[in-house]
Amino acid sequence: MKIGYFQYNPFYHDVLQNREYLGSRLANHSADLLVLPELALSGYLFRTNEEVFSCAETIPGPSSDFFHSLAKKNNTSYVYGCIEKAEPKASAADDLNYNFSSFYNSSVYINPSGDMKIYRKAHLFNREKNHFLPGNAPFFVFDVQGVTVGMLICFDHMFPEAARTLTLMGAQIICHPSNLVLQGYAQATTRSRSIENHIFWILANRIGTEQSGAVSCTYTGGSQITSPDGSILVSSASDEEDLTVIDIDPSLALDKNITQGNNLLTDRRTDLYQV
Amino acid sequence: MKIGYFQYNPFYHDVLQNREYLGSRLANHSADLLVLPELALSGYLFRTNEEVFSCAETIPGPSSDFFHSLAKKNNTSYVYGCIEKAEPKASAADDLNYNFSSFYNSSVYINPSGDMKIYRKAHLFNREKNHFLPGNAPFFVFDVQGVTVGMLICFDHMFPEAARTLTLMGAQIICHPSNLVLQGYAQATTRSRSIENHIFWILANRIGTEQSGAVSCTYTGGSQITSPDGSILVSSASDEEDLTVIDIDPSLALDKNITQGNNLLTDRRTDLYQV
Repeated sequence: MKIGYFQYNPFYHDVLQNREYLGSRLANHSADLLVLPELALSGYLFRTNEEVFSCAETIPGPSSDFFHSLAKKNNTSYVYGCIEKAEPKASAADDLNYNFSSFYNSSVYINPSGDMKIYRKAHLFNREKNHFLPGNAPFFVFDVQGVTVGMLICFDHMFPEAARTLTLMGAQIICHPSNLVLQGYAQATTRSRSIENHIFWILANRIGTEQSGAVSCTYTGGSQITSPDGSILVSSASDEEDLTVIDIDPSLALDKNITQGNNLLTDRRTDLYQV
Repeated sequence: MKIGYFQYNPFYHDVLQNREYLGSRLANHSADLLVLPELALSGYLFRTNEEVFSCAETIPGPSSDFFHSLAKKNNTSYVYGCIEKAEPKASAADDLNYNFSSFYNSSVYINPSGDMKIYRKAHLFNREKNHFLPGNAPFFVFDVQGVTVGMLICFDHMFPEAARTLTLMGAQIICHPSNLVLQGYAQATTRSRSIENHIFWILANRIGTEQSGAVSCTYTGGSQITSPDGSILVSSASDEEDLTVIDIDPSLALDKNITQGNNLLTDRRTDLYQV
């Protein structure tokens, strides 16, 4: 199975230009599963809800249509981060009162057939709490060509319970769109997640610096893919665009017997955990 | 607070000689908390229950008496691994039928006043299951000079739920006596445990090779102490004896607010975890 990531520097608050860039940059590159960063179409730094609103889309919407088209063209399934404008739930009257707080920091999976999955980030990082609602649905896994895949976003890496939940649901690969500003933390924790869950992990981070008024964020790249035995199969520099696809055997993640006497899942002492 | 570890090569199946060696080697070295490896008095490789029996002791027993005496002499609290011979529960008649399966791979904390805590390894590694019973008591923490401390043993590192449970109980430092035979895994996971729980972690591994018949084990050293921010404060070589004590501020582990908007414990989405 060919899996990979695209580490790049999105155009700031310019969804159209990002779609255009991705369309040309990813042309003629195919993979079974290619992961893009968190908020891949908008950039990350928002100071007002109006800014968030200007980059948000419903799903389905123009950006998921774009990725569906790209998926067909390149025969590739994508995972990308975006701002999800949640549909108003009730009447048309409510629609008029559409609320700026109804946005999620989401990750979308879409394949050439147009099958789609949406994951809403459960653990929001710092100022994201000003703009996004936390994910409100259970973690889930889905099938990609017979392989069980899950999604987490950026700061979710810090909570081992999230990856453990996906593993217990059968995840062999976790796709992890990120906008990391710290260096080395997620690379360490996600390698540990691979080891402790015996799974593959695709950490797709971004690069570049965003500035808005007095606030700036520099993103630290270092995207990497780790394997069930904890090997770092590939990793990127902190400041360079990188489109990387590698070949893996996802069945390695099915076998949780790490010694003749140990199974990583059945050895768990759920009778003793208080988590 | 002065914390540290002693990485060494125990004499094989010779409890008396190990006590003698530790008595001389640790003389005049003081710390607030010094961690020794797993099975520090016996070595690790056992092929028969008779071998296990020959190295096992009750707690309290001669070895805990020895460590209490050493603790007073050096004004140091110790954590060390040993084979615990569990007291027969019932009558003297049962005593005669004393059962070889009643052994635990345990970690003992003892301080200069003789206060003692015993942790029985919850997650047994591979052939240990032939000789030891798995820990049968809840995880727990205890007070060391006003600092909350927990114990885990070797393979327990692989299960993030164990360290998380201790963290939720208030652990600022986890003592981790180990006999690691693989290279790099526990160093990676325990650094991640420090990061995800914002705690100190003392990984005390051993060195040397043991051979019994056709079976041999080489222990990989690499003891290390990590801090709540994931820094590796000190680490040892894979094959050298090393007695290391460093000064830390354990109060750093009390603050779980890792950004202005994030608390590592209250941000947990227990409503979504299925662990």
